[in-house]
Amino acid sequence: MRIRLDLAYDGSGFAGWARQPEQRTVQGCLEELLARVLAVPAVSVTCAGRTDAGVHASGQVVHVDVSTGGPDPSSLARRLNGVLPDDLRVHRCVEAAAGFDARFAALWRRYRYQVCDQGAVDPLRRGQVLRWRRPVDVDAMNEAASQLVGMHDFAAYCRPRPGATTLRQLHELDWRRDEAGLAVLTVRADAFCHHMVRSLTGALLVVGEGRRPVGWPAEVLRAARRDSAVPVVPAHGLTLTEVGYPPDAELAQRAEQTRRRRVRT
Amino acid sequence: MRIRLDLAYDGSGFAGWARQPEQRTVQGCLEELLARVLAVPAVSVTCAGRTDAGVHASGQVVHVDVSTGGPDPSSLARRLNGVLPDDLRVHRCVEAAAGFDARFAALWRRYRYQVCDQGAVDPLRRGQVLRWRRPVDVDAMNEAASQLVGMHDFAAYCRPRPGATTLRQLHELDWRRDEAGLAVLTVRADAFCHHMVRSLTGALLVVGEGRRPVGWPAEVLRAARRDSAVPVVPAHGLTLTEVGYPPDAELAQRAEQTRRRRVRT
Repeated sequence: MRIRLDLAYDGSGFAGWARQPEQRTVQGCLEELLARVLAVPAVSVTCAGRTDAGVHASGQVVHVDVSTGGPDPSSLARRLNGVLPDDLRVHRCVEAAAGFDARFAALWRRYRYQVCDQGAVDPLRRGQVLRWRRPVDVDAMNEAASQLVGMHDFAAYCRPRPGATTLRQLHELDWRRDEAGLAVLTVRADAFCHHMVRSLTGALLVVGEGRRPVGWPAEVLRAARRDSAVPVVPAHGLTLTEVGYPPDAELAQRAEQTRRRRVRT
Repeated sequence: MRIRLDLAYDGSGFAGWARQPEQRTVQGCLEELLARVLAVPAVSVTCAGRTDAGVHASGQVVHVDVSTGGPDPSSLARRLNGVLPDDLRVHRCVEAAAGFDARFAALWRRYRYQVCDQGAVDPLRRGQVLRWRRPVDVDAMNEAASQLVGMHDFAAYCRPRPGATTLRQLHELDWRRDEAGLAVLTVRADAFCHHMVRSLTGALLVVGEGRRPVGWPAEVLRAARRDSAVPVVPAHGLTLTEVGYPPDAELAQRAEQTRRRRVRT
């Protein structure tokens, strides 16, 4: 039986998603305690978005395969939350629909980046908000962002990985002011390369503070080479907020397509 | 010259507002770094709400008297934030209007208490949200709360202090569900006795989970004695959000009135 888990975590205390020896990671922590609750020697989980060290999640999605006869998924969330540390919570556990795969069946991932560009950062949100040195112009950033949306090779905004494609479909890249005056970026794509969200955010902030023209991020994109003038902004402003999947009937087909295209997520 | 400072802090790392030897307190921290920025040996600040250990603030108000010729208040916030720790921020510094007194001129204090009574606590808000064991009925809690609003002797809900009055005007005591499903209490009074907000919150939660009838908190109030069935809920769910003052022309009169009545805030 395959189980889908919906997770949230405070990334501050984790060395990222991926299990690593001697490091406190979300995957390591979840697999260890899931194995304990399921009373099995070990389990292996697969996630939708492999978040970097310091990145938070409010809507991470994971799957795990368990033998039948284990605990009822409906009681699993409660039992897991009873043993998990309080910076990692399971919001939902359900038996996954046929064909579900947290990584390959996903249609898109959505992230949020929060920036305080004027006044003091709210101390209660300081773990999730970047303090930016100068005021930024949200309209200018949105004009620059609109030139990046669509299917492009995002090599200029990715940490290179040999053999991996950097072609991505960017669905949404949109700044707004929230009620507290923060500049908040919503970014949604089929999948993201490594450092892509934080590099895109950095390029747009440089435009927002007026140091580069509105057309510059698109120029960098077309040059298809990393540009040292694009800052990779700190991880703590970033949160994985949602993962989108197709209707149940299309899950298997989507997973198969993605696997064939070998999109690296 | 008297300066008004508007502050926010994460109470988690402080042993409360009031300066104490060998303890990290908000007052101690603020006075030390304010003295450094003003280049004076010592300063003494007065606040509107002396928050307990672990209680947060988004709208604390403070005054401090400085000799003329010091730094311009408009640059003081920036300079202070340059040296203050990141769990304590100054949102505003202005020269206070004549007659202003952060404590005695205040008309009311407003606090917020956040409770998660179903599902898992958002890990990013876990420092400001209480996990309550059973689901609570917000309508029942509001019915109980409505019987407490008004001018009453709140001795039953206060930690006794010899010689201090426990007569308070409770203006507002109101639960609602926020967009994340938390039960959020807003409570506003002319002033609060020690532990009053947390005791009132505890009594209402006991009603909310159905262990006591709606009329019980008012019965406890009338009995005018502390009741061991009223839990004092943990500090970390509580935030001082706003302090209200009269128009400038009425500040001095209000401060004088309050001082004469010796209301203990």
